[in-house]
Amino acid sequence: MSSPSIGPVVRVPFNELQALLQAIFARHGCSAAVAAVLADNCASAQRDGAHSHGVFRIPGYVSTLASGWVDGRAEPQVTDLAPAYVQVDAKGGFAQPALAAARALLVAKARTAGIAVLAIHNSHHFAALWPDVEPFADEGLVALSVVNSMTCVVPHGARKPLFGTNPIAFAAPCAGHDPIVFDMATSAMAHGDVQIAARAGEQLPSGMGVDAAGQPTTDPKAILEGGALLPFGGHKGSALSMMVELLAAALTGGHFSWEFDWSGHPGAKTPWTGQLLIVIDPAKAQGQRFAQRSRELVEQMQEAGLTRMPGERRYREREVALREGVGLSERELAELQTLAG
Amino acid sequence: MSSPSIGPVVRVPFNELQALLQAIFARHGCSAAVAAVLADNCASAQRDGAHSHGVFRIPGYVSTLASGWVDGRAEPQVTDLAPAYVQVDAKGGFAQPALAAARALLVAKARTAGIAVLAIHNSHHFAALWPDVEPFADEGLVALSVVNSMTCVVPHGARKPLFGTNPIAFAAPCAGHDPIVFDMATSAMAHGDVQIAARAGEQLPSGMGVDAAGQPTTDPKAILEGGALLPFGGHKGSALSMMVELLAAALTGGHFSWEFDWSGHPGAKTPWTGQLLIVIDPAKAQGQRFAQRSRELVEQMQEAGLTRMPGERRYREREVALREGVGLSERELAELQTLAG
Repeated sequence: MSSPSIGPVVRVPFNELQALLQAIFARHGCSAAVAAVLADNCASAQRDGAHSHGVFRIPGYVSTLASGWVDGRAEPQVTDLAPAYVQVDAKGGFAQPALAAARALLVAKARTAGIAVLAIHNSHHFAALWPDVEPFADEGLVALSVVNSMTCVVPHGARKPLFGTNPIAFAAPCAGHDPIVFDMATSAMAHGDVQIAARAGEQLPSGMGVDAAGQPTTDPKAILEGGALLPFGGHKGSALSMMVELLAAALTGGHFSWEFDWSGHPGAKTPWTGQLLIVIDPAKAQGQRFAQRSRELVEQMQEAGLTRMPGERRYREREVALREGVGLSERELAELQTLAG
Repeated sequence: MSSPSIGPVVRVPFNELQALLQAIFARHGCSAAVAAVLADNCASAQRDGAHSHGVFRIPGYVSTLASGWVDGRAEPQVTDLAPAYVQVDAKGGFAQPALAAARALLVAKARTAGIAVLAIHNSHHFAALWPDVEPFADEGLVALSVVNSMTCVVPHGARKPLFGTNPIAFAAPCAGHDPIVFDMATSAMAHGDVQIAARAGEQLPSGMGVDAAGQPTTDPKAILEGGALLPFGGHKGSALSMMVELLAAALTGGHFSWEFDWSGHPGAKTPWTGQLLIVIDPAKAQGQRFAQRSRELVEQMQEAGLTRMPGERRYREREVALREGVGLSERELAELQTLAG
């Protein structure tokens, strides 16, 4: 996921971190509603040890808001398109408030129809994807989401970058356990993790990316400065990344990862694209049996020698953070306090 | 996909191959309806150069039918569960006739609700997955399908095999082009391709599998005889394979890849599991625009240097086969004629 924060670590109660981030978002151009959603999202990532999407992202949010690239006060417009289809125009704002605005309708449709889709467009997604799907599993639903981002991945067999890191996230309930959740970039590495490595002066494993000349490199700076990432798993990861472009952009009416031009907005960091969510109610066919079967799967995976389930590291970090406070570096905390004014 | 057939090649008109395969299925225990569906499926794979799922599979079908493991005369039972949810009990028969029985209802629901799901259980899937999704794209729909299979893949980080090869297939319409279609095993290699390589006496690239002692091997026979495959793309492919178990088995009410016991049926080759299909109608939100956007994506991929789109090799092989006949080896044709009686 990411390397931990740099320097001496302090621990802050979750709700204090949330309030601090909310103050930052509100001070830098977000409505109260948007600030609350983004602060919860970002504080949750930091709490769960997902540092590449935690407070590390705050300067990017702030510079983007300052650039006028994203509308922090956008009011998403929800349209009930069909018995199992909800559309949201995020109105140039962030994707998470758009999801929040449509969420109740989406869940109601999934419970009635058995499956439902939420298509978000005209949205900026700058966060991890698992916080979007995990809550559905908490309610007993199965959720799948994809979001496209910004050109930085060379399709397998191509000469130059086209796709975004285009993550896929999935969540399913599991009886007597935390939900099974994964969130994977279809790139060999998440963009935030490349930035983390560059900041820390670390080299990457081979096979993650290429430099500006298209040559393989293990230097994260060479990838970030004119280079590009590769898809994970060769042509298969590349095909999945293509699918994400089709589902998150073509199907929603959002931009492809290469279509937006932020050159007139220096400081802008957030991709202006689309997001798709599919939610299934397993109770329609299986009653309560699905979560039990999900648990049987986990038990078999443990029996086969797996010591860590997808999502499990986040739950462990979360437990510690809720008991002892959310860890971040002294320097990060000081910077956040400055940004909050 | 696969290496071509061995020995001198003959070319047979598609409908003749179809009729020959239909005669084989009918003679070896399938009803006329099931024989027609399977013959079309298998002849299509051979036609498209997907040799690991073409006539190469016929002996496996025949021995499975002879073993009593699968019911070639099963009549699938379709249940209309909810406005966007169709369930099929394949009654211990093949998955393709179950899909055929539910297909019209599934499409009608997707067109009304915007999205619909088809959950098949108690089914045997022994074919490629792309023939299940491609026809939806021909009708302007987007389709995604997953099917679990039989234990032969070691989850990333585990000591022993658990998952099946668990493929994911996707199809989307594309204006003025054949649909964009991919079908990928979540294993590093498809099981049929390992069998093809073993038959041809070829070595595999590294990273595909392990031998009976759990050590990396490039020998396809070592993988087939007590060894196992690895997931593609490390922990990410492994997480996708896990998702396929949850969607195709836990959600449908089918067996996990490790749950069926065919030891009492010598000759049985077909996994007795489940299959999930999700179909989306892009016209609900985008009208005719989706297929146009899909085409723009393809054009950008070509511009980035991609010379072959997913599915394109099959279309090229299909074009040749429809003009010149479907290629198979003389020996294969003779064997088929013998099986047809």
